[in-house]
Amino acid sequence: MVGVPELTQTQFDTVYNFFSFAIASMLFTALFLLLSKNRVLPRYRTALVISAIVLGIATYHYFRIIDSFDAAYVVDAAGTFVLAEGATFNEAYRYVDWLLTVPLLLVEAVAVLALPRSQARRLLVRLVPASALMIALGYPGELAMANGERALWGALSTIPFLYILYVLFVELTRSMGRQPAEVAVSVRNLRWLLLASWGFYPIAYMFPMFGFDGSDAFVLRQVGYTIADVVAKAVFALVIYKIARLKSFYDDAEFARQETGEKMLDGDPEVAALEPATGRSAATS
Amino acid sequence: MVGVPELTQTQFDTVYNFFSFAIASMLFTALFLLLSKNRVLPRYRTALVISAIVLGIATYHYFRIIDSFDAAYVVDAAGTFVLAEGATFNEAYRYVDWLLTVPLLLVEAVAVLALPRSQARRLLVRLVPASALMIALGYPGELAMANGERALWGALSTIPFLYILYVLFVELTRSMGRQPAEVAVSVRNLRWLLLASWGFYPIAYMFPMFGFDGSDAFVLRQVGYTIADVVAKAVFALVIYKIARLKSFYDDAEFARQETGEKMLDGDPEVAALEPATGRSAATS
Repeated sequence: MVGVPELTQTQFDTVYNFFSFAIASMLFTALFLLLSKNRVLPRYRTALVISAIVLGIATYHYFRIIDSFDAAYVVDAAGTFVLAEGATFNEAYRYVDWLLTVPLLLVEAVAVLALPRSQARRLLVRLVPASALMIALGYPGELAMANGERALWGALSTIPFLYILYVLFVELTRSMGRQPAEVAVSVRNLRWLLLASWGFYPIAYMFPMFGFDGSDAFVLRQVGYTIADVVAKAVFALVIYKIARLKSFYDDAEFARQETGEKMLDGDPEVAALEPATGRSAATS
Repeated sequence: MVGVPELTQTQFDTVYNFFSFAIASMLFTALFLLLSKNRVLPRYRTALVISAIVLGIATYHYFRIIDSFDAAYVVDAAGTFVLAEGATFNEAYRYVDWLLTVPLLLVEAVAVLALPRSQARRLLVRLVPASALMIALGYPGELAMANGERALWGALSTIPFLYILYVLFVELTRSMGRQPAEVAVSVRNLRWLLLASWGFYPIAYMFPMFGFDGSDAFVLRQVGYTIADVVAKAVFALVIYKIARLKSFYDDAEFARQETGEKMLDGDPEVAALEPATGRSAATS
């Protein structure tokens, strides 16, 4: 958690440029969402604002991370980047970030569905504490030097993760009922995107347990965490935006006409069950 | 990619001042677009917002570039700017920038046409991956020391570039159908502007292959890339704005009257095929 003792110029630049890439992509996705707020109906705007807030929090932490990284290394006479005397690369920023943003990512996913309030609450009281617990249990393992201890905390952290997947893939489907086909496809993509991007974190977490350590492992972990963050936050937010747009068009044909100039969305939208096997028309949806 | 060992005062100042020019022109074009969002109909506002976002991302990167350039050089006793010990001028920012902005430039070009959604999607699934591939394939060549390697990556990168031109000049024309004459002219200008500005990048890329290296080549490449970026992003965005304005007027005569005080756009707009040979009236447009 304090950075490796030595990096080559290329290794240092790679990590540095990925951090900068994360700042650029997350900051400007946040601005895009805020500037595009009126492109969706009012009932979906909270989801966009929360998405922008998540991206703002992450941008803040990446500014801290890039500064901490830059300050931690000095170039020696041979052109190698060495950890400066007494300096550390503070990676705890990531956990502070995740503790705030991961629950909010689930809030934005539920918010964009504009479910009846009682159903939204039912989902959130399950998802939010579980996600905070997942991050909190992972942190002691990241600090642990011993592999056994790391594995123990990792395993404990996996329990709420599996519970979140259960809520998203089973309970959420039940709550959603029938949705226009395009919306159903986008919600399905959103969940798989979440599973794919969140799936990377435990893999990087386990690197030291497989004896994969040193400079290369450090670079790969930083680059991997960064890509996972950009996908889990910026790409995720753009899918949220797409769902909000589609649902706005299906909810209000006049809004769709103004926004797209098309009339093809007038009339009854084509609807499809979210998951054919379990989809059912909820009376309240 | 790490900067030349020495620059004269004039050379250093020239590069520095062009970087500052890029920041000024791109940042304030972005602000102009955001402040002018309501001067077009809602259906064209996403194109303006994306244009502003592209300019914002580029501005961010030019701030990083100018700081990196400034930090990399120190003045020696003779007044020459020499690369500081252990310092590098990080030009990878350009590639990170292009990776994000070049696909978005194509998204804004498609967005301003307000095509039926299925046609817009058809164009974007071709243009966006091709443009990202074009940048990704150019990067290893920029790092390469050997000319053969540089030429190989350059050639590979040219394949998606040619494909993008095909989509823009052939498929796009087919999708657009008939447009008012003024709009058709502006769209034609937009495409030629793109071709002209994007055409500079491969030329600068090939400098080392012609043995054109050293301080003068470095300065020319930086100045050239900077001018190309300003044209491809800021001037391009202003043409996008013009198209959005014109299309808004033709779509809505009352809006045109409010915005211009003129009534001359009432009634049937004069229309012209975009390219007489292939223009056709798409049933859905």
